[in-house]
This record gives sequence, C-alpha cells and structure tokens, in this order.
Amino acid sequence: MEYSKFETELQVRPDDIDMNQHVHNSRYFDYVLAARYEQMEKNYHFSMQKFIEMGFGWVISKAIVNYKRPLGLGDHFIVKTGITGLLNKGCTVAFEITNKKTGKLCCDGEFHYTMVNINTGRSETIPEWIIAQYSI
Amino acid sequence: MEYSKFETELQVRPDDIDMNQHVHNSRYFDYVLAARYEQMEKNYHFSMQKFIEMGFGWVISKAIVNYKRPLGLGDHFIVKTGITGLLNKGCTVAFEITNKKTGKLCCDGEFHYTMVNINTGRSETIPEWIIAQYSI
Amino acid sequence: MEYSKFETELQVRPDDIDMNQHVHNSRYFDYVLAARYEQMEKNYHFSMQKFIEMGFGWVISKAIVNYKRPLGLGDHFIVKTGITGLLNKGCTVAFEITNKKTGKLCCDGEFHYTMVNINTGRSETIPEWIIAQYSI
Amino acid sequence: MEYSKFETELQVRPDDIDMNQHVHNSRYFDYVLAARYEQMEKNYHFSMQKFIEMGFGWVISKAIVNYKRPLGLGDHFIVKTGITGLLNKGCTVAFEITNKKTGKLCCDGEFHYTMVNINTGRSETIPEWIIAQYSI
Repeated sequence: MEYSKFETELQVRPDDIDMNQHVHNSRYFDYVLAARYEQMEKNYHFSMQKFIEMGFGWVISKAIVNYKRPLGLGDHFIVKTGITGLLNKGCTVAFEITNKKTGKLCCDGEFHYTMVNINTGRSETIPEWIIAQYSI
Repeated sequence: MEYSKFETELQVRPDDIDMNQHVHNSRYFDYVLAARYEQMEKNYHFSMQKFIEMGFGWVISKAIVNYKRPLGLGDHFIVKTGITGLLNKGCTVAFEITNKKTGKLCCDGEFHYTMVNINTGRSETIPEWIIAQYSI
Repeated sequence: MEYSKFETELQVRPDDIDMNQHVHNSRYFDYVLAARYEQMEKNYHFSMQKFIEMGFGWVISKAIVNYKRPLGLGDHFIVKTGITGLLNKGCTVAFEITNKKTGKLCCDGEFHYTMVNINTGRSETIPEWIIAQYSI
Repeated sequence: MEYSKFETELQVRPDDIDMNQHVHNSRYFDYVLAARYEQMEKNYHFSMQKFIEMGFGWVISKAIVNYKRPLGLGDHFIVKTGITGLLNKGCTVAFEITNKKTGKLCCDGEFHYTMVNINTGRSETIPEWIIAQYSI
C-alpha cells in the first residue's frame, strides 16, 4: 500500500538557533511533530486531541534523523511527512524537511510510533476504523 | 512621541506545551522575540542580521510579563509590539499577546533593551540614523 | 515577617546557549523554576507533586527579571530564592542567580504566583496549613 | 579497538516535561549532548571550547534513538556514552540513558559526527593527535 504525503510550511524561530548559529539539532524533531499535528487535523481529519479524548495516545519508539544541511535564522521550510507502515500495534512515519528558498533537503528520517491506552500506559491494538482513517 | 505598533501572527507548537497542558511560561518570551525579529525586517526595514553585520547588538536588560490567560495546543495568536521609549543608550518595547480565536489578552508586558557593540560587549550610543529608522 | 532563603546549584546545559553564545534569556525562568521545585521538596518538605495530588496548582501571574551579566557554556550557578510575600490568594518569590566561579550577580527578579484549584482552574484561598508550612 | 565508556549524572528539569507528563522526546538529545560536553572536558581532557578555539567543530550527521521508558519530573539519570567508531572524517558515539532510581534503561542509540573546519564549514580530516587523544 502506498500512503499519501502531506506538506506543512513553518518558519524557524529565533529561540531555535543554537551556539552554532543554526537550528539546534533536536528542534528538527519538534518541527516534524508540529507538522504531523497539523496534518492529523487538516489531512486525516482526526486530530491528536481527538485521540487523547478517546483515551489513545501515540508513543515514539524509535527516531532516525539524517542531517544534510542546517536551517538558519528566519528560514522558511517545508515538512513533508507520510506513513510508510501501519500495522496493528503501531506505525512508521517518514519525513523530509526542505529549505523553502533553496529547495534543498535539510534532513530526513523516520519515527516509529506505538499506540497506547492513556489510562494503562500499555500498547493497544489500533482499531480498524483508525487504520482506515489513516490509510489515505 | 507616539510610535507605531505592529502585529505578527504565530501558532503554538506542540513542544511549547508544558506539564500543565498550556504554553510554558518562558515561551511567551520567545514569541515576542520571534515577532520582534519579523517586525524589524518587515516594518522597520532594518533586520537583526543587519544590526549584527554592522557590529551592533541588542541586549535585554529587563523583562516584565503579566500573565492573564494561557494559550493552548494549536492556538493561533497575535503578538502586537511597539516602542514606548527610545533613548540614546537603549529602548523599551511593550507587547501584547492575544488569542486569535477569542480575541482575549493572554499576556502583556515590556522588555528593556540596551544597544551594545558586539566586539567590545559594551553599551553603545545608538546612532542618530538608527533612532530615525525606528522612530516610525 | 522575614522568610528563609534557599540555594540550589545548577549547571548551564549546551542547549541553553543561544545564537549570542550566552544562556538564552528565557532559560533563566526555567532555572528559577527548577530551583524552586527542588527547594519545595527539600526545604519546605512539600513538593509540587504533593500540591498537584491535593488538587492545587500554582499559576504565575507576573514575572520581572533584571538581567545583569549573562551565563555561558558550562557555567555553574547558584539560584537563591525566597518568599517575599504570602497572602491568602498567592505569593511572591524573589530570586537571585549568581555565577559560582565569579560570585557575580547574573540576574535577579521576582515571580508572583496565584494558587488555583486544578479542577476548576480558578484561584483558591491558600489553606492556613500551607501558609504555615511555607512560613519558614 | 575497544573504546572507554564514561558516565555523567544529570537531573530532569521541570521545563523538560511535556504535555504527556514525561520528558519531551527531543530533550534526550540534549541530555546526551550535555553529558558528552562534560566528558570531553573531564575524561578526554579536550573540551569542545578547545576544538572551537582551534577552528574545528563537530557536526551531527545522523541520530538514532530507541525509546524504552520515559523519564519523569525530578528524575535523576545516568548518561553513559562511548566512541564506537573513529575514522579520519568522523566518529560514532553510542549512548545509554538509565533511570538512576530504578536502574532501568530509558533510551539508547547513537550519533554520527563529522569533523568540520569552522571557517569553511567543510568536513576536515581529523588530525592524528586528536584521534590519539580520543582513543582511550
């Protein structure tokens, strides 16, 4: 199965810049998270808040980031994400962050998520209808 | 003298939310900084990067924030800032952060800045032409 | 009434440093918060977790920070805090952050807190026994 | 070649906690960075500041993090790191973060670094004497 990819445009905030005058390494993580939250609501029509209200949460189990070129102060960038695997206990989301001005790749990678029951904290089988909602 | 006020719209990022499910107190600081950087470039036509290239920097000497209502996950908000005092060694910038959806005030306050020479780290008299550029 | 002051030693983390090669302005907030949490547990013997378990929370209503000298990469520093006012709806905490090596003041200021009921989000009268616990 | 491993003890700061009441995913990155900076100075006797003074820098090219168990408010933890590969253009550092109280693994992973010339921003062959200094 081939899943859809979605794009979110964001801008570097001054507090994202570290002592090397570039976006701090760990902030790319937060950019993917921000893009993903927006896309869950806008593109999948099922926001993180709705997951939480239903007692479900997503816990990250693995992160891989390949750094290519840093973003700098004031840069606009595109975060493209898409599901690459969706099984009964979790999913894999791949991402690419591109500098809007140059069109060049800043970093890419993937995050593995496990679905949990918020009340027990234990992993939970993803209901069929959620898999359907995200299988676009 | 009455100075202009400018507005920047921003959105809360998921990593801004703290254990209380609201934007972390210190992040409002970063929102004002982000708005101010944008307004320096867009509205005053003299970006922070240009200040730095000319060997000048702005150092914050005092911050006052009055917290009224917190922002939450995904909220869009307006940061309105304006100079309230511009003297030969520094300036004062007042700000208001308003929730875009409700129109209600989240916090307001002011930041006092001192101009410094980046190379010496010492305070510097603000050149007349910079005062002119910012006296709009 | 004269309240006690308590000290906590902390160290600057590399991710606290911003593009100016100093601790980012808003991080001093977080240092005071970290020191205060430790002191609530160690010195007042009533941790923030206990407040939360009892359905109480502290909401910041005003912050004032006077910046004197920045902290840099790897610096050790002392956060001294103490109550300066404790009324039936809130309290004021003053702080001083000092560079451990030089003994010089980095910043000082005060935070005003309001006590809230976590469930209603509304301000709450501080119970007498909490005032007693913190009146040391 | 088998390289040494070093340990640094750190504590979770309140601003590290996110809306899920655990340490925010991207902050583990910053914990490894903090530990590594300390170990460069204390254990390798060649601090990051010295690298910078000599015109060298380390740029991260790949990060892999496996999340096992989250850290929470106030937790003390141990960051164990060690070189697992040291070639003429870069090195690989593996890490493990362990909860001090429970002794259980919170996350592990590895970071790949490339050495760069700070002035040109280009990758640089690591001088023999640096390889020697770090081959302990």
